[in-house]
Amino acid sequence: MRRRRGVFIAFEGIDGAGNTTHSRMTVEWLRSLGFDAVLTKEPSSEGEIGRLIRRYLKVELPHPAIDALLFAADRVEHVYRVVLPALDSGKIVVCDRYVESSIAYQSAQGLEVGWVKSLNRFAPQPDLTIILDVEPETALKRKGAIASEKFERIEFLSEVRRRLLLRANEMGYPVVYTGLPIEEVGMAVRKVVEALLRQRGLI
Amino acid sequence: MRRRRGVFIAFEGIDGAGNTTHSRMTVEWLRSLGFDAVLTKEPSSEGEIGRLIRRYLKVELPHPAIDALLFAADRVEHVYRVVLPALDSGKIVVCDRYVESSIAYQSAQGLEVGWVKSLNRFAPQPDLTIILDVEPETALKRKGAIASEKFERIEFLSEVRRRLLLRANEMGYPVVYTGLPIEEVGMAVRKVVEALLRQRGLI
Repeated sequence: MRRRRGVFIAFEGIDGAGNTTHSRMTVEWLRSLGFDAVLTKEPSSEGEIGRLIRRYLKVELPHPAIDALLFAADRVEHVYRVVLPALDSGKIVVCDRYVESSIAYQSAQGLEVGWVKSLNRFAPQPDLTIILDVEPETALKRKGAIASEKFERIEFLSEVRRRLLLRANEMGYPVVYTGLPIEEVGMAVRKVVEALLRQRGLI
Repeated sequence: MRRRRGVFIAFEGIDGAGNTTHSRMTVEWLRSLGFDAVLTKEPSSEGEIGRLIRRYLKVELPHPAIDALLFAADRVEHVYRVVLPALDSGKIVVCDRYVESSIAYQSAQGLEVGWVKSLNRFAPQPDLTIILDVEPETALKRKGAIASEKFERIEFLSEVRRRLLLRANEMGYPVVYTGLPIEEVGMAVRKVVEALLRQRGLI
């Protein structure tokens, strides 16, 4: 895929790792530096597929491939309608979850990693993918999960976490541990983003 | 995939080839023979994904992969909620369009055949796939298409038709030409279905 003018940054992590918080803080910080930064997310908020995914996340589906295919469909629409136009006009796009969250969550439900990756072949690789890492126990506390749900979810989130860390190893993604006060995490994130901006000659 | 008790028959073809008509006629005929036959279709009519696909078919999408992924997602849901339960209870399931229509329509829009096939890896192969074949000009007349749309659509439908015929060669699917009076086509379809029922010891 040809090099775009803008910069594409994705935050990935388990629920409660701080994806939404740090995507937002990063955009605010980039704007304070004078950059034209756009905050976006997946599942997308504008598209009909994104809205359908949100409804389907609340119901039991007969096969995990349904979510995997819907996330990939939503992603192509989101990329072509939102991400690529913004990159083409030179903006910094910060995406709250992207391909790596799909790979980790969906393969943890028993789908082959290679298949989930292949569904996402039309999703461009971000310039920077930041893995936000935290203990599932801490993540669940942040989400206010009730005790009865916890055990099953902790096991599942531990598996998703492990898969994200494996992909970080494989792909060389920076990992930021988020089990710290928010300002300290924010500083660690900014350090990673600054390195990219410096490398691109933007600061 | 384990052998199911029922019989799964799919009709595939370009728009206006008679998929809906001959699916319905086949079910009525099977019922008249005393079989417990179920008529179903794709995009599915019950599921939310099927309804979304129908809306999306009317709008311009930024990439053909969106439709390909949505059709595959709808198919998994439809297969697991409708087709497999009916087959498990011994019914004959007749499906108005299935995987081969996706492969033909979506590869005719520039997507790789192998990729579209891989999206559909959780869709079980029917016991019988019947390709309904007709000239695009005849198909469009049946659909009452207006003249201004015709040229582009005839070229596109010719390409879809060609791809369906190639798959019929490759997979050994029976092809029924539908540019004839409906009763004659119906007789040709019944001959193909009868051969399967005889082979399965059902008649």
